[in-house]
Amino acid sequence: MQKPHITLLASCTDQLGIIAALTHTISQHHGDILHLEQHVDAEDQQLFIRIQWHTTHADQATWATHLDPLFQTYHMKTQLYDSNFKHRIAILASKEEHCLYDVLTRHHSHELNAELVLIASNHTTLAPIAKQFNLPFEHCPIEQSDHAKQEAHLLNILKNANIDTLVLARYMQILSPEFLTHYPERIINIHHSFLPAFSGAKPYHQAWKRGVKIIGATSHFVTEALDNGPIITQSVTPISHQETVDALIQLGRNLEKITLSEALHLYLAHKVLVHDQRTIVFK
Amino acid sequence: MQKPHITLLASCTDQLGIIAALTHTISQHHGDILHLEQHVDAEDQQLFIRIQWHTTHADQATWATHLDPLFQTYHMKTQLYDSNFKHRIAILASKEEHCLYDVLTRHHSHELNAELVLIASNHTTLAPIAKQFNLPFEHCPIEQSDHAKQEAHLLNILKNANIDTLVLARYMQILSPEFLTHYPERIINIHHSFLPAFSGAKPYHQAWKRGVKIIGATSHFVTEALDNGPIITQSVTPISHQETVDALIQLGRNLEKITLSEALHLYLAHKVLVHDQRTIVFK
Amino acid sequence: MQKPHITLLASCTDQLGIIAALTHTISQHHGDILHLEQHVDAEDQQLFIRIQWHTTHADQATWATHLDPLFQTYHMKTQLYDSNFKHRIAILASKEEHCLYDVLTRHHSHELNAELVLIASNHTTLAPIAKQFNLPFEHCPIEQSDHAKQEAHLLNILKNANIDTLVLARYMQILSPEFLTHYPERIINIHHSFLPAFSGAKPYHQAWKRGVKIIGATSHFVTEALDNGPIITQSVTPISHQETVDALIQLGRNLEKITLSEALHLYLAHKVLVHDQRTIVFK
Amino acid sequence: MQKPHITLLASCTDQLGIIAALTHTISQHHGDILHLEQHVDAEDQQLFIRIQWHTTHADQATWATHLDPLFQTYHMKTQLYDSNFKHRIAILASKEEHCLYDVLTRHHSHELNAELVLIASNHTTLAPIAKQFNLPFEHCPIEQSDHAKQEAHLLNILKNANIDTLVLARYMQILSPEFLTHYPERIINIHHSFLPAFSGAKPYHQAWKRGVKIIGATSHFVTEALDNGPIITQSVTPISHQETVDALIQLGRNLEKITLSEALHLYLAHKVLVHDQRTIVFK
Repeated sequence: MQKPHITLLASCTDQLGIIAALTHTISQHHGDILHLEQHVDAEDQQLFIRIQWHTTHADQATWATHLDPLFQTYHMKTQLYDSNFKHRIAILASKEEHCLYDVLTRHHSHELNAELVLIASNHTTLAPIAKQFNLPFEHCPIEQSDHAKQEAHLLNILKNANIDTLVLARYMQILSPEFLTHYPERIINIHHSFLPAFSGAKPYHQAWKRGVKIIGATSHFVTEALDNGPIITQSVTPISHQETVDALIQLGRNLEKITLSEALHLYLAHKVLVHDQRTIVFK
Repeated sequence: MQKPHITLLASCTDQLGIIAALTHTISQHHGDILHLEQHVDAEDQQLFIRIQWHTTHADQATWATHLDPLFQTYHMKTQLYDSNFKHRIAILASKEEHCLYDVLTRHHSHELNAELVLIASNHTTLAPIAKQFNLPFEHCPIEQSDHAKQEAHLLNILKNANIDTLVLARYMQILSPEFLTHYPERIINIHHSFLPAFSGAKPYHQAWKRGVKIIGATSHFVTEALDNGPIITQSVTPISHQETVDALIQLGRNLEKITLSEALHLYLAHKVLVHDQRTIVFK
Repeated sequence: MQKPHITLLASCTDQLGIIAALTHTISQHHGDILHLEQHVDAEDQQLFIRIQWHTTHADQATWATHLDPLFQTYHMKTQLYDSNFKHRIAILASKEEHCLYDVLTRHHSHELNAELVLIASNHTTLAPIAKQFNLPFEHCPIEQSDHAKQEAHLLNILKNANIDTLVLARYMQILSPEFLTHYPERIINIHHSFLPAFSGAKPYHQAWKRGVKIIGATSHFVTEALDNGPIITQSVTPISHQETVDALIQLGRNLEKITLSEALHLYLAHKVLVHDQRTIVFK
Repeated sequence: MQKPHITLLASCTDQLGIIAALTHTISQHHGDILHLEQHVDAEDQQLFIRIQWHTTHADQATWATHLDPLFQTYHMKTQLYDSNFKHRIAILASKEEHCLYDVLTRHHSHELNAELVLIASNHTTLAPIAKQFNLPFEHCPIEQSDHAKQEAHLLNILKNANIDTLVLARYMQILSPEFLTHYPERIINIHHSFLPAFSGAKPYHQAWKRGVKIIGATSHFVTEALDNGPIITQSVTPISHQETVDALIQLGRNLEKITLSEALHLYLAHKVLVHDQRTIVFK
C-alpha cells in the first residue's frame, strides 16, 4: 500500500544548482521527497538523477507542467511516471519454458508492477503455458525463412495491443535493426552467459570447453550489436569440473530466470537509465 | 588525485524542503555537488543524508559557518569533513595476525585514508609485526586480572596520541561500558561469525556443530551489548561437511580480513551513520 | 538419457579395507564405477560413502543380493537405488505460492526425478494452482484447533497415496513428534532465514530490526527441535538499509524457492546423508 | 598436527576395476584411506583420481615401490607425495604489492605448506618488502629490451635455488615458450579479470567501458596461449555504475589476492590436475 507518488528519471549536462532547482520546485508544489539518487559521470560530466516524491495530487500531467520549465532550461532528457502508470508488456519466447514460467508466476504473485498483455512465439510449444495463465498466445512462425514477414506480423500484433515493452524470455531469434527502432531501450533480453564472455550460440558448451569455474547470466537491453547492448544486471554461480554441459544448462536456468526477473523488476520500478553502452541502475 | 571537496553526514526529523534548502545553500556558495544520497526511515520519519561537493575553498570551518543556520533550523545532528581530514587510528589486537597484517598492508598501499598511529595489545606476540611496519607497539598487559587498570593504561596511551578511532583486529578482550563512552560509534570490531548467529566464544566450533553450509564474518561498531552493536558489513563463504573446525578457522580468516577492511574503508570515506541498532551505509 | 545405474549410500564405523571390499564386489559383478565419494568424520571415525555405477543389470534387488554380505560384515546402514526408482512426493503448503510454483514448474520442465503425487494444505488458497498443474489438492483444515485430528486426516491421505517424502513449501504448521516418526529424514522444509539466526516466527522482521547486511534461507530436514533439523543447503543475498521489511520478504522469496529446490534436487539425486544434527552432501 | 600420509594424484584411461585395484593395494600395505575422490570425463573416458591415506611408513619411495606395478598395468600418469614434501617456490612480481603481501603474510601465518625461497622482479620497487620478510630479492631487469637475456638470468637463479614452482604475483611480463618448458603446469598466474572476458591489457578499463555489473579475477596455469591456460579458480564481486576505473582497480585487488592464494592453496594440497585446457580440482 504505497503512498501516491511521482518518479522522475532525468539526464543532462551537469551544472551548478540543478539539484537545488529541481528539489526546490518539487517542495514548492508540496512534493515530499521519498528517494533521491544522482550520479555524475566523471568522464563526460553528464548528470543522471532519479527523484521520487509523495504528493496528494500525484498525476503525471500536473507535474509535467510544474517541471517543464526546468527541463527546458537544463536541456534535460526526462521520463516522468505517476504511481498509477503500468508498462504494457509482451513476452517473446521460443521453446524453453523456465524464464516464461518465472515471469508468469511472479506476475501472478503481484511481484511485477505491469500489465502482462500477451505471449508471442515463433513456435507453438509454449501455447499450453499461456493457456494455464489465461494469457493470449500469438503464434508468429517464420515461414520459408522470411524473417521480415514474420517481424511485420509480430509488430502488427504488438502495435495493436499497445505494447510498450518487450521481454525476451529465451527468444531464439535475432531482431532486425528496423524492428528495434520501434522499441529503443524497451526490449529486455536474457543471455545465458556472463557477457562479454561467450556471446553468440551455445554459451554453456563454450564455458565447459574453456573450463571456467563460474558461469553466469546477463540481462541487457537489445541493440543492433548482438549480445552487446547495455547490461542491466548479471548473476553468477560457481561450478566445478564435475558438471557436464547438461548440468551447466540446468544450473544456468536458475541464473537466467532470477537475472531476467531482477532486470525486469528494476526496469518496472523506473530505476534504469542508459548511457551509451552502459546503464545507470539506481538502488 | 581527487578534487578538494566537503562531505556532510546529517540526520534529523524529515520535513518538506530540507534537501532543497541544503542544496540551495551549497550552490549559493559555489559548491558543485558530486554525490548526494539520502534515506528516510519509514518507521520514525528520520532523514539521513550524505552530500559531497567540490569547492575551491574546501575547508571545514568555512562551510560549517555557511551551513550552521540550516543545521540549527532543522535540529540536525551533523558531521562535516574536508578532504584534508584524516582519522587518527589505533589498532588493538591480541595474538592473531591476519587482520592486523591486512590493515597494515592496505595502509602501506595507500588504500586507507587515515593516520595509522599505533598498535596496542594485551600480549607481545605481535610486536615484531609492528616493527616490520615501523609503527609504535604499546603493550598493555592485563595483570592480576585487573581489567580496569589495563583499560586506564590503554586509554591514557590513546588520549596522549590523540586517537579518535579504534580498530579491533581480533582483540580478544571485552571493553567496559566506561571505556566505550570515550569512543562512541568510533570503535570498529570484527566478529568471526555471521551475526546474530554464533555470538560469543568459539563461533567456528559452534558453526561446525550446527552443520551450517555457509559461514560468515561481521564488522560492527562496539556497544555495551556484546556482539550486538550496529552492523557495518558482513561477508559469507560456502562450506561443506568436509571442512573440519580448523579448515573453517582458516577459511574464516579470509572473510575476517576482507570484512574488517571493507568496514574500515566505508567508515573512512564517511559513508556510515548509526540509527539505533542499525547502520545507514551510503554507497 | 543416462545409462542404467545403481546408487549406494552407506555409513558405518570406518575400518581398513572397506572401500577396497565394496569396489571389488562391484567390479566382480561388472559394475563400472561412475562416481565415488567418501567422507570420514574425524571425531567419531564414521565413514560415509556414495558410489554410483553403471551396469547392464541395473535392478535394485539383484545388487542388494550381491552386496548384502558386505553390508552385514561391516554393519552398514545403507540405501540402494536403481535408476528407475522415483520418490513419491507430496507438497504441503499454506497460503504462499512462490515455493509451490517453483517446484511445480521445475517438475513440469522435467528437472525433478520424482513422482509429484499431490498437494495438501490447511487452506484452500492454493487449490487453483493445483488445478493449473492437474494435481490433486487435498484440503486438510485445522478445525477447532484440533491439530491431532488434522494430522490424522493428513497422514491418512499420505499413506493411501504411498507418499514417501514430504516437501514443506512454506507450510506454516508445526508437525507433531508423533507425525514425524512416519517420515524420518523424509520431510524437507524451507525456513526463511539464515539459520540458526532468526528461527521461529517473522524472521524478516527480526532481520530488519537487527540491521543485518545479508539475509538468507535454509532448507533442512524436519525434526522435533523446531528449525533445528539437519541443514541440507543455505543461500544468502546482500541487502542494505534501504530495504523495508516488505522488500526483504520479496527478496527472500527468490532465496526460498532456489534453496528449497536445490535441497530437493540433492535429495532426489541420493546425495544427502544425515549424521546427528548435520548432513553429508555429496557433490 | 596431521597424521603422516601419502597423496596420490593419477590419471589414465578408465577401465573396470581400477579403483578396486588401487584401494586393495593400499589396504594390503596397511594404508588407511582418509580421502578418495575420482572423476571420469564423459567425453574421452579419462579417469582422474586423488587418494590420500594414513600410514605409519609414510615415505614416498616405499609407496612408489608398492604401487608401481599398478601404475604400469594401467598406464597411469601419476604424482605421489608424502606429507613431508614441500614445494620450493619463487614469487615473480613487478611493481604492485598487494598479491605479494598476501602470499608473504599467509606464509608467515603458516597457511602455506611450502618453502618460500625467493622473490624475483624486473623492477626494484618491491625490494623493501622482501627485506621486511627476510627473503632474498633477485633483481632481473630487462635491459635494452633483451627479454631472452633476462629470462636466461632469471632461469639461472631459479635453477640454482632448486625452485620447482613459480607464483606470478602480478608479474607484468610475458614468459617465452622456451622458458615455460622448464616449468610445465608449475607456473601459477593471477589475471585481473573474469577470463575469458577481458584478456590482455587493462582489463578493468575494458570492464568499465563495457558496463559489466560484476568483475572478477582468475588464477590459472601459464601456457603458451596468453591468458588462456587451464583455470584453477575464479572469484567475482558485484559493482555498479558508481565505480570509476580506479575504484574497480581497488576492488579488484581484493579479488586478485584472494583468488591467487586460493589457487596456491589448492595446488600445494595436491588437489589440482590438468586435462587439456581444463583443470580437475578435487575438494
